[in-house]
Amino acid sequence: MGSQLNSSVSAKLPGGKTTTAEKLLVAASELMIERSSIEVSLSDIAQKSGVNAALVKYHFGNKDGLLLALLARDAATEMTQIEYLLAQPITPTAKLRLHIAGIIRAYHQFPYMNRLIHYLLHESSTEAADEVSKFFVAPLLEFQRRLLAEGIKAGEFRNIDPVMFYTSLVGACDHLFFGRHAMSRATGVGPVTDDVCREYIKHMEALICGGMLNEGKRRIANSE
Amino acid sequence: MGSQLNSSVSAKLPGGKTTTAEKLLVAASELMIERSSIEVSLSDIAQKSGVNAALVKYHFGNKDGLLLALLARDAATEMTQIEYLLAQPITPTAKLRLHIAGIIRAYHQFPYMNRLIHYLLHESSTEAADEVSKFFVAPLLEFQRRLLAEGIKAGEFRNIDPVMFYTSLVGACDHLFFGRHAMSRATGVGPVTDDVCREYIKHMEALICGGMLNEGKRRIANSE
Repeated sequence: MGSQLNSSVSAKLPGGKTTTAEKLLVAASELMIERSSIEVSLSDIAQKSGVNAALVKYHFGNKDGLLLALLARDAATEMTQIEYLLAQPITPTAKLRLHIAGIIRAYHQFPYMNRLIHYLLHESSTEAADEVSKFFVAPLLEFQRRLLAEGIKAGEFRNIDPVMFYTSLVGACDHLFFGRHAMSRATGVGPVTDDVCREYIKHMEALICGGMLNEGKRRIANSE
Repeated sequence: MGSQLNSSVSAKLPGGKTTTAEKLLVAASELMIERSSIEVSLSDIAQKSGVNAALVKYHFGNKDGLLLALLARDAATEMTQIEYLLAQPITPTAKLRLHIAGIIRAYHQFPYMNRLIHYLLHESSTEAADEVSKFFVAPLLEFQRRLLAEGIKAGEFRNIDPVMFYTSLVGACDHLFFGRHAMSRATGVGPVTDDVCREYIKHMEALICGGMLNEGKRRIANSE
């Protein structure tokens, strides 16, 4: 699992020590899922993992370091999957659909990931934000660039700007998780269950691929 | 301007006192734009407005109260505009395009609005979050419900779930502003200028209306 951490974090983890670091990450992850919150203290993490609190400092520097390492661990799993996806012998459209489903499932599988990204980008140090950009935003954007180029070349996609595409797709997926509890307060919309996830995947696939206008009206709208 | 505030806030502002409250809101708004941040202190706001700091407490209770009143003021302007839009004698598709442009322009015009919403929903009190849901999320969702129903009835839109539609549209628009500086760190993507805004409006109109598949491929994808 050490190899899944980004270089600046794994540099702090000499070979024999990864087990302790790993235990701390597992404990942090489980606590966040149990509490539906990223508000977990270092002493809670130490207690749950059975590791001395002083070792958290040794391995990760501080709590932000631990949070960053946790996000890096989960993001690395996702990045491996998108590399694998790009190499499959299927159409760009089929890859795009799988990618949309993959993003939404990743947010659902790691329910704290989304809050962690927002926290590290906006409320922690500049260094942490730079790290998040480096191991999350940049590789995802690069993957989408390549997928879009492939689809345009194959004549399946219209010409579309990768940065704008990234912004709208990631924003829309992220908002299911980030915006949901605001909506539930306003409207009685329920929590994000497995069913809601599946429905949202279908919705996003249809919206990104074909939009929302009926077939006949689309030609009129596009020629406006 | 008092009438633009939501009821719980305007209740704290008896007739003759609105001018002071208004001055404080204008000062807070200007400071946030100058600093590109919602991190402004009550004493900064008092100083800029020429109003005694004690009066902030009198008018708004605390800083969160002031931030909430500021968001309510800006949101009210937007809500008036969407009501007006719904009543226009134009097609649902044309209304949808104007609505997409309207959301993006509102975020651009009040660059702090987006950060304020996130702060009030996630980092302040439950009461503040409830207020934001009440005067921002609920009316916007209700507007979109009506617009979608109109478009489906007119045969212009396919059947689409309003809550899912809201999530993806607002998420995608929001992310241009919320996600942008993460991207700029990663990739040299520039700040959100007027031009970027115009381009993103075009991008979102095309994506939401017609998706990204080429015409010929769409039928194949839809029948998959």
